[in-house]
Amino acid sequence: MLELLNKRRSTRKFKADPVADKDLQDILEAAMNAPSAVNEQAWQFIILSGSMLDEFLAINTNTPEGAPVGILVCQDLRAEKAKGYSVQDCSAATQNILLAVHAKGLGGVWTTVFPQNADKIKSLLKIPEMVEPFSFVPIGYPVEKPAKVKSRYDAKKVRRNTW
Amino acid sequence: MLELLNKRRSTRKFKADPVADKDLQDILEAAMNAPSAVNEQAWQFIILSGSMLDEFLAINTNTPEGAPVGILVCQDLRAEKAKGYSVQDCSAATQNILLAVHAKGLGGVWTTVFPQNADKIKSLLKIPEMVEPFSFVPIGYPVEKPAKVKSRYDAKKVRRNTW
Repeated sequence: MLELLNKRRSTRKFKADPVADKDLQDILEAAMNAPSAVNEQAWQFIILSGSMLDEFLAINTNTPEGAPVGILVCQDLRAEKAKGYSVQDCSAATQNILLAVHAKGLGGVWTTVFPQNADKIKSLLKIPEMVEPFSFVPIGYPVEKPAKVKSRYDAKKVRRNTW
Repeated sequence: MLELLNKRRSTRKFKADPVADKDLQDILEAAMNAPSAVNEQAWQFIILSGSMLDEFLAINTNTPEGAPVGILVCQDLRAEKAKGYSVQDCSAATQNILLAVHAKGLGGVWTTVFPQNADKIKSLLKIPEMVEPFSFVPIGYPVEKPAKVKSRYDAKKVRRNTW
């Protein structure tokens, strides 16, 4: 099972083939089984496809195009029990999304929502106050299998008991 | 493999049995294979055990005691290519640590390092400037197998194309 954690890499080129609804639901279930600060689960999710996805991508230009669907992860500031910790909740959820995507033979990539794009995206998707778009993962079948993955393990970044 | 993502839960009561070095290395490899903002990998790791672990726990009192070892994840601000994004890098790495711990039949829990404890911890462990302690995961064999895990999937948190 460590292979899942070690072999996952970003996908940026997608086939147009659709992603099954059951797969999306499984991916979202994994997202919501991530840990969160004092179990606050300060996250919300919006599945984007079709013309709404196109409009989103026209704003969030750092996200690669071509995937048939994607998941926008939002911080729910209303649910925060510890101020600022929804960033960590949503990061753990996004990582679970990427891992579940990989487990299903799909591909995806963690793209950020830059603060300067947040207001336009909130307006487009009618996201209420106190909810902030955080990350977006486009999801689809990868055009090509990734080349052999090289581990990023770096022994120089590990110390014992003292720096 | 989705089971790994869905069944992982926090462990807060540990047996004293030691954790093999090979297991710790595998866990750290999974940590470093997490994604990071523009692949900056702005993380560093310190394995704590013995008296240094005891001293750390005396400062970071929100971490449960009893585990024989643990991993302190630190933000490496020197490696940040996008300001502030080491929080997301270190969150993804911490989540991979928890999943690898679970995959090995070990237990752990994501505990935070509160800002008010950071200076004392940096002094104890001789952590340099521009590196900040972020999270600590105590690791050990769980005293008891967790009860049947209930999924946190919540359909009310999923929307399609608009809020």
